[in-house]
Amino acid sequence: MSNAVALTEGQFNWIYNTLSFGLISMIACTVYTLVSQPRVLPKYRKALVLSSMVTFIAGYHYWRIFNSFHEAAGDGYSITVRGANNAFNEGYRYVDWILTVPLLLVEAIAVLALAKEVASSLTTRLVIASALMIGLGYPGEISMDNNTKILWGVLSTIPFLYILYVLFRELGASLERQPAGVAATVGRLRLLLIGTWGVYPISYMFPLFDIGATDAFVWRQTGYTIADILAKCVFGLTIYKIARMKSAAEGMKDE
Amino acid sequence: MSNAVALTEGQFNWIYNTLSFGLISMIACTVYTLVSQPRVLPKYRKALVLSSMVTFIAGYHYWRIFNSFHEAAGDGYSITVRGANNAFNEGYRYVDWILTVPLLLVEAIAVLALAKEVASSLTTRLVIASALMIGLGYPGEISMDNNTKILWGVLSTIPFLYILYVLFRELGASLERQPAGVAATVGRLRLLLIGTWGVYPISYMFPLFDIGATDAFVWRQTGYTIADILAKCVFGLTIYKIARMKSAAEGMKDE
Repeated sequence: MSNAVALTEGQFNWIYNTLSFGLISMIACTVYTLVSQPRVLPKYRKALVLSSMVTFIAGYHYWRIFNSFHEAAGDGYSITVRGANNAFNEGYRYVDWILTVPLLLVEAIAVLALAKEVASSLTTRLVIASALMIGLGYPGEISMDNNTKILWGVLSTIPFLYILYVLFRELGASLERQPAGVAATVGRLRLLLIGTWGVYPISYMFPLFDIGATDAFVWRQTGYTIADILAKCVFGLTIYKIARMKSAAEGMKDE
Repeated sequence: MSNAVALTEGQFNWIYNTLSFGLISMIACTVYTLVSQPRVLPKYRKALVLSSMVTFIAGYHYWRIFNSFHEAAGDGYSITVRGANNAFNEGYRYVDWILTVPLLLVEAIAVLALAKEVASSLTTRLVIASALMIGLGYPGEISMDNNTKILWGVLSTIPFLYILYVLFRELGASLERQPAGVAATVGRLRLLLIGTWGVYPISYMFPLFDIGATDAFVWRQTGYTIADILAKCVFGLTIYKIARMKSAAEGMKDE
């Protein structure tokens, strides 16, 4: 098994620009949600500032991933992926997710402004499940052995399915208590969350498909980056939209 | 076909300083529009903050382009444009445009404060058209073959003309509903947008003209940078002026 992935010039440039796109999307989204704080009622600002923190943390990690990718290429287009201290560090993604995924879930709960006991119980269960999901995925991500990859992938899928179940079954009930017009957007938020989260397991599995290590690497980096932009930036902007709608429904003037 | 463009010392310095000029214009404009938020009515702040995001994202990309230009020169004045992982990365411009051009269009729609349905329909159509325009331009930009360049250039021009049509035909109608004095400035904004956008296809076509690869490179970088400053900074400041005029017309005191 090789310690490097030999990219073409086009593949190298594609990943390089995709990572840069992810980086600036996260940072711009952070600034946007930070300066938009006064445009929602104070009770919804927790959701907004959590979104800023998610994209801020992700922006930091994309800056690190971008630099790591460049350094791992040395003078050419072959990316060292292990066996050297400047190897491409996939660990940044897992450090990012272990911080941002629980925050994303708390952000979604915060914008719904549920009763305190309901919110607290949901938070505990979703945060624990998300930590398990990411922690169990990592040994499979870094393993070179397909059986190991599948084993940890399956273990990681159990809390993943539990999160989907909670979001659909229990958050669904809260939809009925939302003001008119908001319920539809909250419904779309839940679909966005579930739809984009589905990209992660698919990207995780690319090395298992019979497409060669190079293509698997290109597709995995592309898939993770697009999923991160959808799950963090687009998700955060949807949270902002919901907060604006609920603020307006609760009498906030915008003149 | 050479992998490098051999600039003279004067040409190198010219592009270097032009890129630096673009970089600080974007960043200064970002700070100016961010701190000016309280000087317009809340309903116009979305337009202003979108302008801040456009110049912020562009500032990031000018910083990257500036560094890439310097690194691609190595120890001399010859710019490596392909065949090495530190080659001058024209892709940054396209990543920039794919993010900023839709935001610019939404910014223009936001400052007009149109009825919700009209704004929503305009946004959808213009955002899709702008993504097509930029996505179709990129294969031509990076191609070494003039026929390929022309093919993608023509394809990219179709959504470009559609955007111009929508701006002239449909936004024209909204001019009549603007307060006295504002209509003239909105008219100028539209002309600015269309006038500066015309610079992009011209810069794109420089390599097709019979002026040599070096001159084409110098003119293309200069043209793109000037067009970016006009289309983002001057455009954003015009948006701010319109927002100030409309705020005053709607009774905002400035004492």
